[in-house]
Amino acid sequence: MIQDVFIVGATGNIGRTLVKQILVSGDTNPDIHVNPTRIVGVASSANFIYQPRGISHEQAYSFADGQYSQSQAYNGLGHLLSVARAGHKPENSSLVFVDVTALNKPMTDFHLATIQSSPFGIVTANKNPAALSDYGIFQELTKDPNRYDYRCSVMAGAEAVSMLRDLKDINDAPKTIQGCFSGTLGYITSELEKGRKFSEIVKDAKDKGYTEPDPRDDLNGLDVARKLLVLARTAGYEVGIDDIDISPFIPQDYFNGGDVGSFLGSIKQLDAEFKAKMEQAAERGMTFRYVANLDATKEVPKLEVSLKEVPLQSPLGNLKGTSNKIVIISNSYPEENPYSVEAPGAGLRVTAQNIRRDLLYLLKDREIKIK
Amino acid sequence: MIQDVFIVGATGNIGRTLVKQILVSGDTNPDIHVNPTRIVGVASSANFIYQPRGISHEQAYSFADGQYSQSQAYNGLGHLLSVARAGHKPENSSLVFVDVTALNKPMTDFHLATIQSSPFGIVTANKNPAALSDYGIFQELTKDPNRYDYRCSVMAGAEAVSMLRDLKDINDAPKTIQGCFSGTLGYITSELEKGRKFSEIVKDAKDKGYTEPDPRDDLNGLDVARKLLVLARTAGYEVGIDDIDISPFIPQDYFNGGDVGSFLGSIKQLDAEFKAKMEQAAERGMTFRYVANLDATKEVPKLEVSLKEVPLQSPLGNLKGTSNKIVIISNSYPEENPYSVEAPGAGLRVTAQNIRRDLLYLLKDREIKIK
Repeated sequence: MIQDVFIVGATGNIGRTLVKQILVSGDTNPDIHVNPTRIVGVASSANFIYQPRGISHEQAYSFADGQYSQSQAYNGLGHLLSVARAGHKPENSSLVFVDVTALNKPMTDFHLATIQSSPFGIVTANKNPAALSDYGIFQELTKDPNRYDYRCSVMAGAEAVSMLRDLKDINDAPKTIQGCFSGTLGYITSELEKGRKFSEIVKDAKDKGYTEPDPRDDLNGLDVARKLLVLARTAGYEVGIDDIDISPFIPQDYFNGGDVGSFLGSIKQLDAEFKAKMEQAAERGMTFRYVANLDATKEVPKLEVSLKEVPLQSPLGNLKGTSNKIVIISNSYPEENPYSVEAPGAGLRVTAQNIRRDLLYLLKDREIKIK
Repeated sequence: MIQDVFIVGATGNIGRTLVKQILVSGDTNPDIHVNPTRIVGVASSANFIYQPRGISHEQAYSFADGQYSQSQAYNGLGHLLSVARAGHKPENSSLVFVDVTALNKPMTDFHLATIQSSPFGIVTANKNPAALSDYGIFQELTKDPNRYDYRCSVMAGAEAVSMLRDLKDINDAPKTIQGCFSGTLGYITSELEKGRKFSEIVKDAKDKGYTEPDPRDDLNGLDVARKLLVLARTAGYEVGIDDIDISPFIPQDYFNGGDVGSFLGSIKQLDAEFKAKMEQAAERGMTFRYVANLDATKEVPKLEVSLKEVPLQSPLGNLKGTSNKIVIISNSYPEENPYSVEAPGAGLRVTAQNIRRDLLYLLKDREIKIK
């Protein structure tokens, strides 16, 4: 069976990478895939191309690169859903929308409308609908794993979402989840460990494009908190963002206004403190990691994200650089033998690849090509 | 949709654990599961019960415990397939055979017949059909992941099989796979690291039930080689057991006959050598692990299993105790950011649980229960 794909956000960084990966890897080639991919739609924030028999490689490439010559204007995401509903022939293929935007409310409405009033599937790298919607909407979206997959919203390169979903479903929900879900903050703690100055590391990370344009958007811990929320909900815990105790990487005062330049200047005040903290920890065989933690051993699950001292020789302590890690303990994965996976977090390549991986699981008749 | 399950090997250690887990965890309970499990069949090596409307909990329990009072004799695995074919109503449910035997040729024939001439699925913890059959049979069995799953044949607690299958399918086959796939040999290397005597560790491991009844069946490396073979084939490499360079944990001489007692006596000769080896390695920051390795960077993939010196601070070096680990490098998971997962290997509990997990992926209309 052909898998039709409609990429929403195709001109963003991930969208562009995804379009190119699909074409270069031969996903569209029936000689390589029993279930070849057909790109039938691409959309930016205001333009789209939709052709139910597939758009050409050239069209897809040039749209992803921001050349909208053959495209139409559209008016709201509902418009995309209605053209797909009119044009798609479900007897020949399955259609999946891929969301590689960072939209919140309008995208949540779109996901919900797609799941509730169309036969189409959704694969998303956008964590907002799963993290920021009501718990009821989260449940409605994710109840059918054959139609909604969101592996790439947390630790794109790993198995966190599918593992936790399955544990819930076989009644072995995790007792604790611990993890480092930010490549950016992982880079900063790794560099601090080497003895470098905090303010220089942050500036360096910003220059290399590891941080958001404003590094405060990483240092405030919100992104990590949203990822923890997606995982906790996936594991079956009815929680919202307000249930998470969020301690930013640096004191709250540093987030009070000012442009990026003055912020980068102000954090020089923290250099000596970080240096002393790291040195003292190292003497005790410890280090620091920005840790997301779910503890469900009590009646009310406790969720927090914070900069935490951990043993250098522990699963999180031996994590290096920008890699992400998750450690899960449940009845079947006891403390002395937990489940843990370490993988690149959310790079463009690994995210695009794992969107393609999620797409495989939405295939009704998936087959593997025999050589 | 109900998922009907027919457990072949139900009176073995894993089979018994599985039956109890299914009943105790509430897999059969429609209040917990949108897709409840119904045990319709259980078979030992010569007896079976098959009831298309489900067998009672009491019957399942007592059969698993070896009380065959309500069972029938059967004549070959084909008999089980034919009764299921006659009794099963596909419009109401899907049926999956679970293979928790250690059979080779007859089970391979059964798997093949099921896939080729019935609508049923197979979930297996038995690695023989995937490891010891021809490559063509392996491909035939595994081409449809929605009908054949074998996660539990290698590192039951982890994601090795699904990860490699997907990497193949998105054209990012691994360049190298490195792993420790034997909890038994992991235990031995961990204890050697602590300075204990080799012969005492082996005796201790045997007494604790960590090894096969004859520890030579672990130390010869064959089990690890078969696991590597399953993974290599899953990743798309056309290889057989003869393509693997197998170096046993101890020299070949020790496998030449004699009973278990005299074997355990003979390996005392190795104590001093292992002690010296471990100490010398430790001085250089190294340790030993029994490593399975696939190197596909050259035209012909190279496969070997052997006792290898690795840095203590490396992904395999920091593995402790009986846990298993796999490290995968591909184009999208580069050497500095590989994918790695660490989890319990093949304990009864974790194997039974992951058979239940595999069963979820064979559900055509899987849904997650909303509270």
